[in-house]
Amino acid sequence: MASPSPGYSITLRVQAPSSFTATAELAAAVGSTGASITALDVTESHHDSIVVDVSCNTTDAAHGEQVRDALNALDGVRVKNLSDRTFLMHLGGKLEIVPKVALRNRDDLSRAYTPGVARVCLAIAENPDDARRLTVKRNTIAVVTDGSAVLGLGNIGPAAALPVMEGKAALFKQFANVDAWPVCLDTQDTEEIISIVKALAPVYGGVNLEDIAAPRCFEIENRLREELDIPVFHDDQHGTAIVTLAALNNALRVVNKQIENVRIVVSGVGAAGSAIIQLLQAQGAKNIVACDRRGAIHSGQNHTDEHRRWIAENTNQGAFAGSLHEALAGADVFIGVSGPNILGEEQVASMAENAIVFAMANPDPEIDPVIAARHAAVVATGRSDFPNQINNVLAFPGFFRGLLDAGASDITPDMLVAAADAIAARVDDDELNASFIIPSVFDPHVAGDVAAAVAAAAAPAAEHSASESAE
Amino acid sequence: MASPSPGYSITLRVQAPSSFTATAELAAAVGSTGASITALDVTESHHDSIVVDVSCNTTDAAHGEQVRDALNALDGVRVKNLSDRTFLMHLGGKLEIVPKVALRNRDDLSRAYTPGVARVCLAIAENPDDARRLTVKRNTIAVVTDGSAVLGLGNIGPAAALPVMEGKAALFKQFANVDAWPVCLDTQDTEEIISIVKALAPVYGGVNLEDIAAPRCFEIENRLREELDIPVFHDDQHGTAIVTLAALNNALRVVNKQIENVRIVVSGVGAAGSAIIQLLQAQGAKNIVACDRRGAIHSGQNHTDEHRRWIAENTNQGAFAGSLHEALAGADVFIGVSGPNILGEEQVASMAENAIVFAMANPDPEIDPVIAARHAAVVATGRSDFPNQINNVLAFPGFFRGLLDAGASDITPDMLVAAADAIAARVDDDELNASFIIPSVFDPHVAGDVAAAVAAAAAPAAEHSASESAE
Repeated sequence: MASPSPGYSITLRVQAPSSFTATAELAAAVGSTGASITALDVTESHHDSIVVDVSCNTTDAAHGEQVRDALNALDGVRVKNLSDRTFLMHLGGKLEIVPKVALRNRDDLSRAYTPGVARVCLAIAENPDDARRLTVKRNTIAVVTDGSAVLGLGNIGPAAALPVMEGKAALFKQFANVDAWPVCLDTQDTEEIISIVKALAPVYGGVNLEDIAAPRCFEIENRLREELDIPVFHDDQHGTAIVTLAALNNALRVVNKQIENVRIVVSGVGAAGSAIIQLLQAQGAKNIVACDRRGAIHSGQNHTDEHRRWIAENTNQGAFAGSLHEALAGADVFIGVSGPNILGEEQVASMAENAIVFAMANPDPEIDPVIAARHAAVVATGRSDFPNQINNVLAFPGFFRGLLDAGASDITPDMLVAAADAIAARVDDDELNASFIIPSVFDPHVAGDVAAAVAAAAAPAAEHSASESAE
Repeated sequence: MASPSPGYSITLRVQAPSSFTATAELAAAVGSTGASITALDVTESHHDSIVVDVSCNTTDAAHGEQVRDALNALDGVRVKNLSDRTFLMHLGGKLEIVPKVALRNRDDLSRAYTPGVARVCLAIAENPDDARRLTVKRNTIAVVTDGSAVLGLGNIGPAAALPVMEGKAALFKQFANVDAWPVCLDTQDTEEIISIVKALAPVYGGVNLEDIAAPRCFEIENRLREELDIPVFHDDQHGTAIVTLAALNNALRVVNKQIENVRIVVSGVGAAGSAIIQLLQAQGAKNIVACDRRGAIHSGQNHTDEHRRWIAENTNQGAFAGSLHEALAGADVFIGVSGPNILGEEQVASMAENAIVFAMANPDPEIDPVIAARHAAVVATGRSDFPNQINNVLAFPGFFRGLLDAGASDITPDMLVAAADAIAARVDDDELNASFIIPSVFDPHVAGDVAAAVAAAAAPAAEHSASESAE
């Protein structure tokens, strides 16, 4: 399914003879390789030659080399330089740390730094809650990873994970004005990660765990939620669960089924799968069968790990013991957070009438969505090049905006459901159809709506804890 | 010595009768309390009343209340609100984290985030050195504290230390375009601090230790320098030592003495004192006596802590065993990094002709500089309201700029001396006099000069280690 993508966008600096048809010939050569031109700028023009910057989307690095070769094959044409626009964008990192206060003169310095700052320090020492008012803790979260499960790349370590965490931080700021800082830890020891994040907490108003391998991520999240007084969110779990629930609610509206009545098959019981199951149950789902590589998880097995045991005890009441393919026969909903190409057309065909297929494995889904759509009524993926992209960026920026605005110290299931409802509600009744069950990631209202819903859901809890501390 | 300071600047919103003399009366009332007016803005004007924002510098919070009372005592005048401009400046924190890349549309997203970012991650996984090119590590340092020795406030803890670290980070950006992030650790355990900073290192190109109590700070710095491949600087040690050496070099030029020949008394053997002693010796000083609360440190004592033992072995060759006051008789240079008001006029008078006194305790120096100047030829303090302010901000921003530009992995004594020389050289021969031995903290050329000197001093070391790794 590889097609030219802006993620593989390159710019070639090309010297060519100056002739009336030169640029057209360059464009034709690029097009002949299957690359799609996005810009063509003449940067120098001489008596007998021109220099042209040709930008195009390709499918991969080898394709870029094909474009280079095709251009070099033209008479009198020479590619002087090939630059990868993705790498150019990352040069020097994607974030900077900027003062919000001017430091133009000694008076400014006396207030922002010594001696004036000493009074602010003392105020916080006397009343620690003032840190949320007088420091970056007010608006800043940590994006914490150990680099053990980065995108689909696996355990690439903390340094190689940093570009993803920087991108995430950029999204937090862009979509919800949340200041987010990457914390890439050079350890994969559960206890060490827990104690480090606890030690870092004074600076942050929240923690977003990211790309930490299961089952370690469950223990880390649970312990930090218990031991910290700031909210701890695991995007691979909660972010994915929120957008999945939002999409499912709207998909069920399209096919006119109720969550209480449908049979749901979840493929993948890692961080995302477990969290999706819990949230769907919180929303009323009663009939869920979860499958790992070996098939349905059921209570007749002996599970050594705690979270598979939880799944076995809380799903699959009929103790169905077959394969994933067998589980799909007659199912209403497939939710895949597993691996590429594990479903065939016949399995989708075996599902119930008006089936819903969410094939969310990245970058390659559980089944080609075009094939799935031959039999399913609603199909969604994690990809941007098909309709119904289920993307966490719809959830996490607004979710933390709401947590910070409310000064929340914990995350409740109510908040997750409220966020999902807010996302789903961005699709109006008259917009809703099988190809539009979830808003665009660039819908400018999503983050604000999610933030308001989360803050509202947090309010009763905050009032409760305030009255407790007043006692 | 308390005088009105912009660190205690307040703004009072005042309702007054509208009359020709109203603002003059307000100004007179403020002046009568000893506060100094910095601004007076009429914000509303009605038929019979006006609202005026009166900004003034005061000496402390009680003084601010005096100003309020003086205004309220005027006929028909009412202070509606008193706001503290220092606290206003800190609301919401002093830093924000801003994307350097635009995320306007899906193409941007594909490059800065998934799927494009995956290629950048893989490049770093294959070649870890690329992290310095493709991530924030290129330009970012950690400002690390445990909150155990913050300013003159003592052990106020990590949350209360955060406003200082934010201010420091703002200075790094403002003066040298270094991105600096506060790391305020909720632990004061030496081993835990070391292991946490090591775990955080993938994101940073350098570490600035700050306001960590001695002797813990020595162990932390030494171990991190050994165990990390990024430079570790302890501002309370190295920053202070650099600016002290810069000031001393110029002061010696003023009095025409040589560092090899002068007798130097250092009061205070904490982080700053120890580092100053080492750097002065690296620059050629031969006759140093260090004193703590109990007097001169000498080899005839039994020192239980390692760094006092080092001082005893490496200073005070005559094994002078008297008090600080006795040590000063005939001394050429006093360097105080200890506590307030421990010297009297008679001790300064007992020093050699053309004595140099650096009374750098903050906020209150070892002796009132006006009194010291009756007998010493050159007097400097850490304060901005006297000539010759010895302020670390002259050193640390440019120092890290140079380290990052050079990609340095370690800090050498040569770099510290080079930085001090660069600062000292900012004072031209025709500018140099007893009241101007050190440039202003707002001299726009200091940071660049320091950066260039440090990078030049780093270059041979970098070449050396490059040739080592090539072997």
